[in-house]
Parts: sequence; C-alpha cells; structure tokens
Amino acid sequence: MSSDSKVAPRRLKGFQDYSPDLMSKRLRVMQAARKVAQHSGFCEIATPALEYAEVLLGVGGETDKQVFRFMDGGERDVAMRYDLTVPFARYAAENYGALPLPFKRLQIGDVWRAEKPQKGRFREFCQCDFDIIGADSMSADLEIMQAILSTLNRVVGMPFTIACNNRKVLSQLIRKILGFTTKADEEQALILLDKLDKQGTESIVALFCEKFSLNEDRIRKLLSLMTSFRQDNPETLLEYFDTEESKVEWNRFLQTVHILQELAGDGFGKVVIDLSIARGLAYYTGLVYETTVDGVKGFGSISSGGRYDDLAARFCKHVMPGVGGSIGVDRLCALLSEKDSGQKIATTQVFVAIASQNEFAHAFGVISRLRTEGISVDYSLKEQKLGAQFKSANKLGCPWVVVIGSDEVATQNYTLKNMETGVEKKLQFDELIAILRAPIL
Amino acid sequence: MSSDSKVAPRRLKGFQDYSPDLMSKRLRVMQAARKVAQHSGFCEIATPALEYAEVLLGVGGETDKQVFRFMDGGERDVAMRYDLTVPFARYAAENYGALPLPFKRLQIGDVWRAEKPQKGRFREFCQCDFDIIGADSMSADLEIMQAILSTLNRVVGMPFTIACNNRKVLSQLIRKILGFTTKADEEQALILLDKLDKQGTESIVALFCEKFSLNEDRIRKLLSLMTSFRQDNPETLLEYFDTEESKVEWNRFLQTVHILQELAGDGFGKVVIDLSIARGLAYYTGLVYETTVDGVKGFGSISSGGRYDDLAARFCKHVMPGVGGSIGVDRLCALLSEKDSGQKIATTQVFVAIASQNEFAHAFGVISRLRTEGISVDYSLKEQKLGAQFKSANKLGCPWVVVIGSDEVATQNYTLKNMETGVEKKLQFDELIAILRAPIL
Repeated sequence: MSSDSKVAPRRLKGFQDYSPDLMSKRLRVMQAARKVAQHSGFCEIATPALEYAEVLLGVGGETDKQVFRFMDGGERDVAMRYDLTVPFARYAAENYGALPLPFKRLQIGDVWRAEKPQKGRFREFCQCDFDIIGADSMSADLEIMQAILSTLNRVVGMPFTIACNNRKVLSQLIRKILGFTTKADEEQALILLDKLDKQGTESIVALFCEKFSLNEDRIRKLLSLMTSFRQDNPETLLEYFDTEESKVEWNRFLQTVHILQELAGDGFGKVVIDLSIARGLAYYTGLVYETTVDGVKGFGSISSGGRYDDLAARFCKHVMPGVGGSIGVDRLCALLSEKDSGQKIATTQVFVAIASQNEFAHAFGVISRLRTEGISVDYSLKEQKLGAQFKSANKLGCPWVVVIGSDEVATQNYTLKNMETGVEKKLQFDELIAILRAPIL
Repeated sequence: MSSDSKVAPRRLKGFQDYSPDLMSKRLRVMQAARKVAQHSGFCEIATPALEYAEVLLGVGGETDKQVFRFMDGGERDVAMRYDLTVPFARYAAENYGALPLPFKRLQIGDVWRAEKPQKGRFREFCQCDFDIIGADSMSADLEIMQAILSTLNRVVGMPFTIACNNRKVLSQLIRKILGFTTKADEEQALILLDKLDKQGTESIVALFCEKFSLNEDRIRKLLSLMTSFRQDNPETLLEYFDTEESKVEWNRFLQTVHILQELAGDGFGKVVIDLSIARGLAYYTGLVYETTVDGVKGFGSISSGGRYDDLAARFCKHVMPGVGGSIGVDRLCALLSEKDSGQKIATTQVFVAIASQNEFAHAFGVISRLRTEGISVDYSLKEQKLGAQFKSANKLGCPWVVVIGSDEVATQNYTLKNMETGVEKKLQFDELIAILRAPIL
C-alpha cells in the first residue's frame, strides 16, 4: 500500500457518520423498541440490504425513481432496499407455511433513497418497523399503534401528535364527492391529496382541475370536509357512508382512534383524526397515520405507517393482510440532538493509574477483573506520569481512581481515591469491588 | 398496484434472512459486545454502507475484486463497504483534530463481499469491530484483545483458540531466511504464506520456487520454523532478531501473548503463538490474530484482526497508528445454531383471554398497563372462543392467563389462572402485578 498519493477522506452527499454522541441517541431508540417488542411479543428479524430489483420496484408511489439500483458482477439487476415493508412482504410470502400467522415482527435497519438531502433527512437512514402480517382485525391495528406509541413515549420526551386517517374512508369520500369510479382515478387523487399539506388548497384545486374534468366546487368541498372534520361531531360525514361496508369501516376507524386516545392518556403522545393524511405509498388499504412533534416545524413525520392488505399478494396467492408502523430513527435522533446537544456520552467509573511499566501486567489483571465485575474502567494507553494520568481521569469525569504502584503489587492492597473528596484508602480487591458497585449519589 | 402478475419471492444468492431464532443469536453477540464496550470505555459509532470507491479500493489484498461497486444516479463511482476498518480510517482522518486521541471505538454493521458463498459465509455479513486509533502501545494491543476475548467468552460457550502472530516478526524471518530485501517481495511472500493453512507445505514451496529464484531449502526452513515454534523455547529464534528494533518487537510480542495468556486463565479462550498466521490483508503492520473454535472444522476464523499503523496515512498526513479486532457475527451465529438448534425464542409471560368484543376496549387497557409495568403480554388478534385462546396461550408456553369477561370489567377483579397448576384467583390490578412480577421458579 502506497501512502504517497493521498485519497481525500470524504463522504458521499446525503450520507452521515454517527459520532458517539449521535450514536448514543440511535441506540436509545433501538433499545426502547426492543424493550417494547419484548413486552408485546414481537419477534425481531433482519432481511438483506440488497434484493432483486423486481422484488422492490413497481409497488407504486414515487420511490422507484429514488432507488439505488445496479447490475451486480453476476449480471443480476439488484437494488438497495428503500423501506423495510416490501422486503418483509417478500419474506412472509417466501416463508408462507413455516411462519406462524399472525406473525408480529420488529425490524431495525438502514434503508437507502437517492432523494434530495434535507434537514434531518438523508440518503441512508435507519428505520424501526413494527408489523403484523396475517391479521386484518382492529386489534392488530391497535397492537401496532400501541407499540409505536410506547416506543415514542420512551424516547421523544416532548409532546407529539399521531394523526390518523383511513384509506377506505378517504376513498369513499373521493368516490361520493368527486364521483370517481375507477381505481386508477382514485389512486391519482390520493397522490395529489398527499401534497395538500405542503402545497396548500389553491395549488391542489388547480392540479385537480388540470388532471380531471370536474367541477371546481366538488374538489373544494372534499378539501373542506377533509380539513374541517371534528371528531366530536362525526355525524357531519355520516351521509357519505351509505353502503354497509363503508359504514362498518367508518365505525371501526372511529372506534380505533377512540381506544387509542384512551391509551394515550396523559402521556406525551396525542392521537387525533386528520382526514387530510393520504400517505405517498400506494400500497396502503386501511388505517394510515403520521406523527409530528408539536411546535417543531420542518422535520416532517417521525413515524408513519398503516394497513396494507394486498402487498404480500404481489408475491404469492395466499391472503396475508398486514399492518405496520415505522419510526424514522434518524429524524428522531436529529430532533433529539437539537434538544440536548451537550450531552455527556461515556461514563467511566474508575480510572486505573499505573505507576510504571513494571506494574503494568499486574494492573492489567486488576483492570480485567474489575470489568468482569461489571465496572466501567479505563486507563492510559501510553506511558505517562501519574500526574498526567490523574488529569485524564478528570477529563473523563471518573469519580474514582485506583493507583497501582510497586507497593500495591507487593501487598495486593490498592489505593482508591475519591476524586470529589480527595480521600484515599488502601483496599483489597474485594473491598474495592464492594465500594465501586455501590451507586454513586 | 397490480397483483395479477406475481413476482417470485426470492433472495439473492449468498444473502440470508434472519429468522427470529437466528436473529436472537445475533442480538446476543451484539449485546455482549456493547456490554464489554461500556465496561472498557469504547464508544460506538456508525459509518455509511456506501462510500466513494476510491476510499475503499486499492488498500491491497484480494478484496478489490469482491466489492459491490457501481455508478450512482449522480455519476459518482461508489462502492458498498467490504469491512469496517477502512471506513474507520477515513472517519478518523476526516475528524482529525475533533476526535480525542487515542479513540476507542465499537462498530457493529453489515459489510458486503461478492465472494463464493460457503458454509457460514455470506455475501452480506455482520461484523463487530473494536478498534483503537492514535496509540501504538502494547497496552492498546492488549485492550483490543481483552475486548475480543471478553465478548467471545460471553457468547461462544465452548473452547476456542486465539492464535497470534506479528507481521514485523514474520517480515524479519522472511528477510533473514529468504534473503528478501524489497517491500514488494516481502508483501508477495506474505500473500503466499497466508495460503499455507489451506494448501499445505508442498504447494507453498512450489509457489515460492515459481515466483522467486531461491534455494528450495530456504523456504522449507522458513516453513519449518513457522510451524514448529514452541513458546516454552523462544531461544530457538533469537538468532534471527539481530537488530535492536527486531529484538524489541520480538520481546514485545512474547510479552503481549504472555499477559493475554494470564488474562485468559481458565476461561473458554486459549491464547497461543502461531507464526504461520499471515492474514490476507496488506495493511497489517504488527500484531495479527485469528480465532477458531476447537474441534470445529471448516468454519474458518470467528474473529481476527491486528495492528495497522499506516492505514490512516492513506487519507491524511497525520500519524494515527491503529489496532483492531473484528468478530464475524454471522459465522458465530451459524456456529451457535449448529450447537443449539431447538432454542425457544419469545417468552410471553401472560396471555390475556378476552371473552367477547364487548370487553375488548377494557381488556386492551389492562394489556397496555401490564406491558408498561414491564410484563410481556400477548393476546389473540382474531375474535376467538375462550377455549381457542387458552390453546394459543399453551402454544406460546405462557405460564399465566388473565381472563377478562363482563364480570371482570364490572368488578375490575381479573381472573388469573396458573397454567401449570390450574389454580384460578380473582385479583385487582395491583395484586395481579405483584404476582406477575415475582420470578417464576
């Protein structure tokens, strides 16, 4: 290896390193999700980063354009996953028969999208997904929403809002108010409605008039109903649910939200109905939701998802209705970083100061034994005078220093110094452990 | 989305899904490494899966051929990382000045190599790396080896052997015995020696005679010294370390191994000197090691690494000597799977059986409160008769079932059934918690 011509140490645009500080936040989210999964019977799985392109592409929505796709060395058309939901549907279809249904999964992993990098949004980002496949019940919807709510409650630490809608409900409104009759028109309408939040009413009205030949009043009426609906007065919409099926779906939706609101209680998370939530992805078929942190603009949704009853049918003839929620771990971390930027990371309990190289082997034995006892220990990786080692201990914020010199090695009595009070004591290993294990007040 | 033409639910060759059973092993390794990092003051970081190709390629060895490399949408020449060491050197160089040195990192992540898939070896696999950059001391070498040894001791559960060598020591032997004088010849010799284990003495002798014009006896002598060295008789090699520098390195190597052997003690891991360990990667400059599980053939090394003092110099003019060890998480998991295939995964403590939909909302509240108390709870996601729900509870192996019917909702006294003894009791929520929190004997 020649080091004469240097290579610039640079990263790709939209890709980030996780420094220890940012990583500690990512680990906190992951740990919270794993705890919740354990309490709620979700099993963690993992699927590959690379899949056959045909497995991932053509699901609809705008993701196809953003996929990292290439021919591998064996001339296979491959792509990096852009979400964890489509690979999960592939997994469920591939393992049909072997997988106990309904199957509750947790998956935490990176996904890749070549979209325009923006604040809190990267080309590589980590998702944390809870999903249930093989159940179409309201209880499955609630199970997902509880897992999401519990995880967010454990990590967000400030008020947030989960806004819910239902694709079937929205489709019924589109059919009844706009008079649309084809699936294709309906899907087109959903894609336009999804832009309402960003582009505003007038722009959406114009887009609809451009795409479809319809009376402007109709689209204005739809937008007005979507944005003005109040949960305490659900009767206002009842007239549009004039089939048995649409009535059942509407009532199930209202009941789901009601139970979620009970569940949310006085926690950080608030649950509301927002009929203007459409979600960009085409595969949703029922409940959909988005989550924003109150009072924080421009961060987008920190968690979203919904019901996708037909996704697995892409891969097999079996019926496997699914529902899932995804937490955008990196957006959440970016948010937490804005909130508390100066957080301390490592918490080393003890610094072992070694008088000279002669005592190193013995000291290293003591260090290892302390660590085995579950105590966090550090020491200097270069030969340094004791004074410099004490400085390092101070810098790390260690509450204790153990000094090991020739005397300590001979007597196996180690000097323990309390860095706050300055008090020193000579102690045997067992006595040392007893003190270091006690909680620091 | 059309589901008329099905897409085959298949994976790419050499890529695997982690089912819950396999994933639980992966999580066990990750958790052990994180625990060790915490006790030893290693900070966890993450770097991107994709880098500029020039950052990753040209380090030497055989990896360049195996890299997944492509042009991205912005015509950038990019590659998926094939290890976590080269990106770490890039990270250290990019953050020089901001990073406190020596810096101790843990990183756990997937890497990709388009090599021939084989038992326990995939095109996507997870590595768990401990590294120290900015220190060239023996204590830094020991710090890495202790982290590796502790992590493996926590998860392997059967005897394993860490075989150590030193690149400087091996280079000195090559120079003295073969008479090589150039760096290029030396590197070529190391690549050939790395194949000794797989191809055997005669094949390596032939390769050397083909590549270099040298007396066959010399290469036989080198191979004989490399394979017959006994640690209790180190004097046999002393004559070859005839410079001050080589003598110091030889003694440091012997001392390092000696301290490691003390440390390993009676644990599962044994530390030995094996002068035939060469390691394929060209960037190693000092200590190198490989780890095999005793009595298991054909799995290769479950952990390897070494000292790389010049790697960061590829990216910057600063001197940042490094040393690291990497655990092959997937090989280890494959090994653990062979050992105990029938392990139970999820352990749900309580199954909540719900008499009818009328009690669902109340029952869901109880379920959520139990989970918040840290108790693992499951329930049926479809409407089922109580009998069927008890069957599900049995299938999950739940020791307790809580029954909630109209009576329970009215009185807020819940029926708790011990599934082993069959005994039932009516309890208030707080009493329920007290019993469920007690350890099950």
